[in-house]
Amino acid sequence: MSFEYKLKKNCCDTKARVGELSTPHGKIDTPIFMPVGTKATVKSMSPEELEEIKSQIILSNTYHLYLRPGHELIEEAGGLHEFMNWEHPILTDSGGFQVFSLGDLNEITEKGVTFQSHLDGSKHFISPEKSIEIQMSLGADIIMAFDECAPYPAKRDYVKNSLERTTRWLERCIAAHTRDDQALFGIMQGGMYRDLREESAQQITQFDLPGYAIGGLSVGEPKEEMLEVLDYAPDLLPEDKPRYLMGVGTPFDLFEGVMRGVDMFDCVFPTRIARNGAVFTSHGRITIRNAKFKKDFTPLDHECDCYVCNNYTRGYIRHLIKRNEILGLRLTTYHNLYFLLDMMEKIRQAIKEDRFLEYRAQFYKKYGLEE
Amino acid sequence: MSFEYKLKKNCCDTKARVGELSTPHGKIDTPIFMPVGTKATVKSMSPEELEEIKSQIILSNTYHLYLRPGHELIEEAGGLHEFMNWEHPILTDSGGFQVFSLGDLNEITEKGVTFQSHLDGSKHFISPEKSIEIQMSLGADIIMAFDECAPYPAKRDYVKNSLERTTRWLERCIAAHTRDDQALFGIMQGGMYRDLREESAQQITQFDLPGYAIGGLSVGEPKEEMLEVLDYAPDLLPEDKPRYLMGVGTPFDLFEGVMRGVDMFDCVFPTRIARNGAVFTSHGRITIRNAKFKKDFTPLDHECDCYVCNNYTRGYIRHLIKRNEILGLRLTTYHNLYFLLDMMEKIRQAIKEDRFLEYRAQFYKKYGLEE
Ligand SMILES: [Zn+2]
Ligand SMILES: [Zn+2]
Repeated sequence: MSFEYKLKKNCCDTKARVGELSTPHGKIDTPIFMPVGTKATVKSMSPEELEEIKSQIILSNTYHLYLRPGHELIEEAGGLHEFMNWEHPILTDSGGFQVFSLGDLNEITEKGVTFQSHLDGSKHFISPEKSIEIQMSLGADIIMAFDECAPYPAKRDYVKNSLERTTRWLERCIAAHTRDDQALFGIMQGGMYRDLREESAQQITQFDLPGYAIGGLSVGEPKEEMLEVLDYAPDLLPEDKPRYLMGVGTPFDLFEGVMRGVDMFDCVFPTRIARNGAVFTSHGRITIRNAKFKKDFTPLDHECDCYVCNNYTRGYIRHLIKRNEILGLRLTTYHNLYFLLDMMEKIRQAIKEDRFLEYRAQFYKKYGLEE
Repeated sequence: MSFEYKLKKNCCDTKARVGELSTPHGKIDTPIFMPVGTKATVKSMSPEELEEIKSQIILSNTYHLYLRPGHELIEEAGGLHEFMNWEHPILTDSGGFQVFSLGDLNEITEKGVTFQSHLDGSKHFISPEKSIEIQMSLGADIIMAFDECAPYPAKRDYVKNSLERTTRWLERCIAAHTRDDQALFGIMQGGMYRDLREESAQQITQFDLPGYAIGGLSVGEPKEEMLEVLDYAPDLLPEDKPRYLMGVGTPFDLFEGVMRGVDMFDCVFPTRIARNGAVFTSHGRITIRNAKFKKDFTPLDHECDCYVCNNYTRGYIRHLIKRNEILGLRLTTYHNLYFLLDMMEKIRQAIKEDRFLEYRAQFYKKYGLEE
């Protein structure tokens, strides 16, 4: 199989680590942030721009692509890489999270989930087998098991049932998955309950999968609770496999995840706030719509070396965003993704050079975060 | 002065001509189509993409920039070129057309026009002097005189009064204009009345201006009436000066304008229809939303050599447009502008090689147009 994780360096002070993930569409340096291309496009970005900012892998959403334009159509087009003109690695989620959060749920049974499309109310049924069938049609390099993600807060019994069903569904996903050019990742559940996280990890790691995700976090719980789970959850997963924390993507979350042993992250956060005119800077987040930037003819971030910061001013970008001009969304999105990917590259470098905590302290201080 | 028009070649069969216009920000090959960047951005395009498709000059709108973000702000930013990161030639219109068509008109007097902003209802006054003041702040290479454009249809008396006022206003524009790195173009009016067109031309060409525009066309009149005026109007303007037909931009209009002696064109048409999912192809216009393109995995136009046609399929672009994805608007806009600019380049080449009518016949036949 063309899929392999090589652990290259452990942090001298924390559980952070640098690794390399091989996929049929290229290698990925970890820890990595994956930009989200929900509907087969990272909103406002072209594939070339994604390359320019050194996106090594992007994520796309099974639920959305299944509904529109349909996975059969994408398969006919030659698969998702070909369809969207992206020749580097892709990860697809299982659709489970969106079925539970966007669809109008009709019924969850052991067999699968019946729901109504959030677009037109049409009725659909997704099972572990169906999710894998869709993901095989899409043809991403990494695909995810169909899981049941418990909401927050949830009673212990509910969470226990969810995690056990998730394990049974994982087994069915593995049986249904026949493409050997795709890596299937299992997902740990267990909510905020340590013993349930342990139970889930113990169950899913019985299957020798090429990678594992930590699910059921970033679902509305307070930040401290998430960090508490992250204090032990990654350790419950094999050291020689990549660990993926789903749905997380602020600078703080990325640093905290990395230092607890997480290798992969994804989130719509940087692209979504960009479209509202909020941008990362080395001195914290700013809202470019703010009147004080009207005549500010300096870059979004003085210390950023991206195309946007080299060519445009806050005043111009504010004008574009205020006037709903597409170029405005393009520029803020480009910068925000560059900022996060560049930060991840610096994190990898710092780990390699045994100065991760130093870099974190320095970043936090400037950004206005507390350690 | 750094502004000069060189007539390089007359068509052997028609009044079409190839020329070169020098401006402080570079040379322009004519006949040329100018993409419209209403609010200091050609909707959805980056400056680099405009360069890629060989845009030699773009147009921006005085009325819109005056209201938001304000010409003083743009002047403070270092002028429009600097503000929007476009280092090639720019033309600004006078604001007159938008004042008459978008603003809530309060009063037109000899002094100028009082109107209410279409954005917030605020009251404004624009006179010839004010328009020139704004355009000097913006700093475009070519600026336009503030004219009174008669609506269609309009009575002879009304048109006559408008054109005579336009001449008096032109005189005031010339007096107010003090930047010698900008070329001020006069505008011919006269509606659909040949003798009034002659009167207008005779009056405005008394001033030795670096270029002249044909105004008052493409204001709602039937195509045949526009062509009728175009049959004689360009001839009323000096041969050794560029002639600019305002607000025109379909392939048919460009061919017909060129063969009647027009050198410059602008229109929001190609970019506006692109955002609705309509694209030019060498075999005519298509609407990419159409269901028949769902599984069409061929380029927008087989004969087009642009970035979009080299990398994306109709099926993917249809998916993006149907899902309101920004990349969809980017791709259709890019292709449409490339298509028109490439067509203009081929027109220039054909004129140079004495086969303009041949190229026109060939283009029309394929595109489905009647000569
Ligand atoms: Zn930047
Ligand atoms: Zn094309």
